[in-house]
Amino acid sequence: MTVLALEIGAAGIAAVRVADDVDDDEIRRSPVPPHDPWQACHDLLTEVAAGGKVTSVAIACAGPIDMAAGIVAPAGIPQWRAGFDIVAAAAAAFPDATVQLALDGVALALAERTIGAMQGVPDALAVSASDRIVGGLTIGGFAVVGRTGNAGNIGHMLIPGCDEPCSCGGRGCLDALAGGLAVCRWARGQGWAGESLAELAVAAAGGDRVAVAAVGRAGAALGRAIVSTAALLDIDLVVVGGELAAAGRSLWKPLGESVAAHARLSYLPGLRVVPSPLRGIAVLAGAGVMAHAAVM
Amino acid sequence: MTVLALEIGAAGIAAVRVADDVDDDEIRRSPVPPHDPWQACHDLLTEVAAGGKVTSVAIACAGPIDMAAGIVAPAGIPQWRAGFDIVAAAAAAFPDATVQLALDGVALALAERTIGAMQGVPDALAVSASDRIVGGLTIGGFAVVGRTGNAGNIGHMLIPGCDEPCSCGGRGCLDALAGGLAVCRWARGQGWAGESLAELAVAAAGGDRVAVAAVGRAGAALGRAIVSTAALLDIDLVVVGGELAAAGRSLWKPLGESVAAHARLSYLPGLRVVPSPLRGIAVLAGAGVMAHAAVM
Repeated sequence: MTVLALEIGAAGIAAVRVADDVDDDEIRRSPVPPHDPWQACHDLLTEVAAGGKVTSVAIACAGPIDMAAGIVAPAGIPQWRAGFDIVAAAAAAFPDATVQLALDGVALALAERTIGAMQGVPDALAVSASDRIVGGLTIGGFAVVGRTGNAGNIGHMLIPGCDEPCSCGGRGCLDALAGGLAVCRWARGQGWAGESLAELAVAAAGGDRVAVAAVGRAGAALGRAIVSTAALLDIDLVVVGGELAAAGRSLWKPLGESVAAHARLSYLPGLRVVPSPLRGIAVLAGAGVMAHAAVM
Repeated sequence: MTVLALEIGAAGIAAVRVADDVDDDEIRRSPVPPHDPWQACHDLLTEVAAGGKVTSVAIACAGPIDMAAGIVAPAGIPQWRAGFDIVAAAAAAFPDATVQLALDGVALALAERTIGAMQGVPDALAVSASDRIVGGLTIGGFAVVGRTGNAGNIGHMLIPGCDEPCSCGGRGCLDALAGGLAVCRWARGQGWAGESLAELAVAAAGGDRVAVAAVGRAGAALGRAIVSTAALLDIDLVVVGGELAAAGRSLWKPLGESVAAHARLSYLPGLRVVPSPLRGIAVLAGAGVMAHAAVM
C-alpha cells in the first residue's frame, strides 16, 4: 500500500511517499518545467512510489482550483491557464488509487491543525508567505474548503495602503503588496540588487536597509489582512510560515504592531500570531494527511 | 406554548411572539432607554407574551457578545459596556423557557438562509447596513457562529481608502466609513442638514448631491469588504439590507462597480450582490427561527 502526496506551487513541485515519519530527505522536488508540467509531476510521483502499488494520491495545488471538477489553474503555470484536469490525469496514471485535490492553503491549514501549531485550537488561520501569499482556515476544528475549494485565500483580500495591480486582474490585493514577487519588485525599485525572496529575507535579517523596509511594508499589510480575517471569523490564532517568515524581527515587529493597532474588538485581544513550526513542508504534509486519511 | 424573539440593536429593541406567520404589526419596538435597558427588554417580552407560558426565548444582540457565557456588550449601549449577563436575566424572567443568544449578524444570516434571499445558496454573506454594519455568514449551508459567537462581523474589516478612527478603538474599519453614524457625520461635514441615515437614504434617492456622494462613498467601501470576504471564503451570494439599501441606485451603482473592479479571481465572476427581501425584520426573524427551532 503506497500513499503519495504531491504539492504544486508556482515555483516548483514536490512529492513524497507518506509513511509514519516523513523526513525532509525523502521529499523529491523539481522546478515547474517549461513544457508539460504534468509529466514532471508524474515523474516525481513515480520516483517516490518506487514501484509500490499506489492506493492513494492527494494533490495540494496553488489556486484557483475547481475541486468538484478536479481542475487546477494555478496563476504561476501558464500551460494550465485554461484549466488542467489533474484528478483525471492522476487517476489514469494510478488506476488503483483514490485521488484527492485541495487548495494549497487548505492543505496548509490541515497540516498545522494535525501536526503543527494549530493543534488543539479549533478556530485559526494558517498563512504561508513566499512568492505568493497562501492561506487556509479552520473553523470549529475543521478546515474550511468553500464552494469551489478556494476558501482561505487570504492573498486577494483588499488591504489599506495598497493600490498595486494584482496578478488576478484586480488591484489592491494583499498578494500585490506582500507576496514575494511583489516584495522583491518593490525592493529592486529601491535599489536592492538581489533576486529571490529567500535572499531578501536573509538581507533583512542581516539589517540591509532596503530589505528591512520591503519586509516591513509586507509585514504591516499582512497584519491588516490578519486582523480583518480574525474580526470577520472570530479566530484567535494565526500561524505564519513561508520564506518571508525567515526575515525575523524585520517581519514580526511591523506585523505585530499592525495587529496590535487594529485588533481592538473585545474578542480579539487574545489574538496570537506565531511562526509555523513546519518549515517549508506544511503544504506537502497537509496533502500527506489527506492521502493517509483515505486509506485509514 | 409561547415562543419569543428579541432583537437588541444600538438604536432600539424589538420583540415578537413567534407564530407561523409573523406580521410587522405584531412586532413591538422601543428605543434603548437611558436607564435599565434590560427592564425595557423585559417589558417588551412580557407584552408580546400576553400571559402565555413562555417556553423559548431567542435573543439576537449587537456585538460583541460572549455566546458561551451568555453575556452581551453592544457598542451602542453604555450601561452594558462591562458586559451584561442577558441569558441569566432572561432565564430568571422566564423560568420555563430555553434561552438562546446569538450575534445580530448570525441571526440575520439565519433569516436570509431560512426565509430570505439565501435559501438554497449554501455559501453566502448577509449584510445589514444601518447605523452600524452588521454581517453574518453561511458556509456549506450552516451559519458560522465562531469561537465566541462573533463570526460574520464584517464591520471591522480594514478597508482601502479608510483611515477614520472607529468605535472599536482601532481605525480604518468598514464601520468607521460605511456605518450609518459615520456616513451621516461625513455628510453633515459636507453641509448636509439632516440627522438620520433613513433621511440621508431618502435624500440620496432623490438626487441630493451631498447625500449621493456620502452613500456612494459607503457603497464603494462596502463593495471592497464584500470582495475581500468573497475571495477569502469562496462565496457567491451577498444579500444587503438595512437603511442604507433604501438609497437605491446611489448605493447599488458604486457598490456594483467596486465589486466588478476587484472580483477578478476565477471563482468570483458569478458573485451576486442582491437586496434583502426581509425589509428591516431580518435580525428579529432570525431570532424567531432560533427560538422556534428549540421547541420543534
